[in-house]
Amino acid sequence: MISENIKEHVEVIENLLEQKDYRVLRNIMSEYEPADIAEIFDEMSEDDIPILFRILPKDLASDYFVELDTDHQMLLISSFSDRELSEVMEDLFVDDTVDLLDEMPASVVKRILQQTSPEKREVLNQILAYPKGSAGAIMTTELVELKAHMTFDEVFKRIKRTGVNKETIYTCYVTDDYRHLIGVVSVKDFLIAQNDDVTVEDLMETQIIYVNTTEDEETAAKMLSKYDLLALPVVDNENRLVGILTYDDAMDIIESEDTEDIEIMAGITPTDKPYLKTGIFETWLKRIPWLMLLMISSTFTSKILQHFETGLAAQAALIAFIPMLMGTGGNAGSQVSVTVIRGLSLDEIELRDVFRILWKEARVSLLCGLSLCIVNFGKMLLIDNVSVETAIVVSLTVLAVVIVSKLVGGVLPLLVKRIGFDPAVMASPFITTIVDAVSLLVYFAIASAVLSM
Amino acid sequence: MISENIKEHVEVIENLLEQKDYRVLRNIMSEYEPADIAEIFDEMSEDDIPILFRILPKDLASDYFVELDTDHQMLLISSFSDRELSEVMEDLFVDDTVDLLDEMPASVVKRILQQTSPEKREVLNQILAYPKGSAGAIMTTELVELKAHMTFDEVFKRIKRTGVNKETIYTCYVTDDYRHLIGVVSVKDFLIAQNDDVTVEDLMETQIIYVNTTEDEETAAKMLSKYDLLALPVVDNENRLVGILTYDDAMDIIESEDTEDIEIMAGITPTDKPYLKTGIFETWLKRIPWLMLLMISSTFTSKILQHFETGLAAQAALIAFIPMLMGTGGNAGSQVSVTVIRGLSLDEIELRDVFRILWKEARVSLLCGLSLCIVNFGKMLLIDNVSVETAIVVSLTVLAVVIVSKLVGGVLPLLVKRIGFDPAVMASPFITTIVDAVSLLVYFAIASAVLSM
Repeated sequence: MISENIKEHVEVIENLLEQKDYRVLRNIMSEYEPADIAEIFDEMSEDDIPILFRILPKDLASDYFVELDTDHQMLLISSFSDRELSEVMEDLFVDDTVDLLDEMPASVVKRILQQTSPEKREVLNQILAYPKGSAGAIMTTELVELKAHMTFDEVFKRIKRTGVNKETIYTCYVTDDYRHLIGVVSVKDFLIAQNDDVTVEDLMETQIIYVNTTEDEETAAKMLSKYDLLALPVVDNENRLVGILTYDDAMDIIESEDTEDIEIMAGITPTDKPYLKTGIFETWLKRIPWLMLLMISSTFTSKILQHFETGLAAQAALIAFIPMLMGTGGNAGSQVSVTVIRGLSLDEIELRDVFRILWKEARVSLLCGLSLCIVNFGKMLLIDNVSVETAIVVSLTVLAVVIVSKLVGGVLPLLVKRIGFDPAVMASPFITTIVDAVSLLVYFAIASAVLSM
Repeated sequence: MISENIKEHVEVIENLLEQKDYRVLRNIMSEYEPADIAEIFDEMSEDDIPILFRILPKDLASDYFVELDTDHQMLLISSFSDRELSEVMEDLFVDDTVDLLDEMPASVVKRILQQTSPEKREVLNQILAYPKGSAGAIMTTELVELKAHMTFDEVFKRIKRTGVNKETIYTCYVTDDYRHLIGVVSVKDFLIAQNDDVTVEDLMETQIIYVNTTEDEETAAKMLSKYDLLALPVVDNENRLVGILTYDDAMDIIESEDTEDIEIMAGITPTDKPYLKTGIFETWLKRIPWLMLLMISSTFTSKILQHFETGLAAQAALIAFIPMLMGTGGNAGSQVSVTVIRGLSLDEIELRDVFRILWKEARVSLLCGLSLCIVNFGKMLLIDNVSVETAIVVSLTVLAVVIVSKLVGGVLPLLVKRIGFDPAVMASPFITTIVDAVSLLVYFAIASAVLSM
């Protein structure tokens, strides 16, 4: 991959641009993959990008275009003549065009649609009508459709005639006269068939894995991955074939869903934009609501501490261990909540597993709690130089806090999912805030009992 | 997908088993996809699994087998006759066989290898020799190899003869007499070629994207995804083609790398096993080292608090806000560190971006810090009923802590990566522990200045 020494690649290109050596430049540029060109453009001055794009092989213009960042796409579109724009648009697959339209401001969308053929515009409008995040909104319509009676020769003739513009030709879809999806057949089945008299009907699989246009895109992507498909057919409510989702798009969806989960777990409103391309104000806006909410939630812990203020002043030695207790509780709870959140997202854990999780965490938390309790007791006597009573209070609290935190961490994500929210919100930040308050209450309860605080 | 109402599916199967109605059972079972069978087996009694497996269509036995959990695979192997074992093994792709051998105890490995043909055994031993986590260790060798001079007819004859046992036939690899990889050609190129006189040489792409056997599996999977390939060729040090990595395996690698990152970020030693299948002791072992380490690290905060014990006893109102300050610092820091960790993992952020990150976070943290500082000041006066001086001390500390945490959160993952560790360890737990200590020092410094504590 070129990303490791991208600076050198960019330097060579910039030098050639300066020397206006377009012949060599053309040769060099045409050797890069489209995904590499996108990385190179990221490092180039905006003025050079339209020039460089025009140097790239014309027949692959849309392949390069589709890989670029939104900012660079917008830059290029504004530099395109109507004819250039229409050429790039006609070669773009429907799903990529929809992605592009989603990102562009209204004025650019209008211009793009004007430069699109009426047939494609109709398809685009249909897809744009599906709700965001649904399989319908991300599918593409460039697929090979076959009829059951077609013979070996007819199939390959059709592929030869229309295949160049299809996202995948390797899985073909069989429909009846009403476009109902009735079968799936792979090119491999045809190629390895031992005689050439076979028809589509002989080879097609009729137990079809498919999704409805309204299905969540994440579920669709996971189905494709689970069943190791090259493409997943998408049907409408009348079971008519309307599009497919291909494996490369499914990979992108899974990656961006994982990023989204990770961001939510860290208390950030998810965004599609890479970190370094998000503005200061936008970044602030994605972070501040969660920081604010969590800061205000900690009023509970403040109230608890204020309540025990006099007791604490008398037993000042206890103060020193508040952060340790809260930290340990938070970490112990997050370990479970994050495991459960990921398990839910990978479909390894279901809501009905709640009692299995509780039973497991009851035992694991006892083991973890006891280990920490014993080590902490030793550490407090040897390193912290506190009284045996203080060490007992703190160590018992560690045990109790770990058990409570792990149980809370195991149940809360399931509860949040049950009431219809994203379980990822119940990762570290929220678990920590809840566990903080619980830890303090346990601490003071044990302290009152042992030290009569 | 059947996972939503799996219980009903299992009930039907159990009833048929009890009634010994094997004819209907066979029909029902053969309608499930291999991935569904694995889910059904998860819910069945162990005694029923070998019976059910034998009911499944014989010619697809290895397709079903490969999807099963390790426990069920082991159970089946011990129930197989030597002949059954050898049949399943011969149909298993090389990469899946290697996966299986990796998971099985030595005695089972020995038995499997005894039931494998000498040719396959030799290939297996070669692949098992590659280091774990490398592209060589996960590749498969079932690929279509072509020669440059082959014609249209020759290519399709070869695919017809050998294609049934290949992981993918759609991308074919062109080698010279020394097995050096010299080109890549897709079946699509042949099918849409406008005349049948073309040879492999006419159509093959010679700018090949490939990896070496020693390349990290994650890097290989990401390359496949970045360049939207169906399969990525793997070559040895002499540039000889030795295998391919297919898109479905790449998807699995990316998913499990994401899971690993998430686990490390939550302070858990990563494991391949699903949560509900990991034993109590094993789960404890994955969690306790981190909890222990973090608990002991908090000795710093304890020491700081002990140092300021008398001052705190005099200004007891300050104690109530320690958790809020630590929590806010931890959350603010984790937001950045998790963003940077994910950016590094998606190759959106490089080490050289450290100054761009610092400059960005300097501004974002100022915005976040000021917003929180102002809201906190109001909240403390209105809700917490503290003195103006206390509110000033705490609010200024919020501002300082947010700025410091965000800068620390931005730099530490890069630093950890720079010295060769996984940046994911610098997520919430560690950032929180570091930020806790820093927050306290800042708090007491400001308190000393304002309240002369």
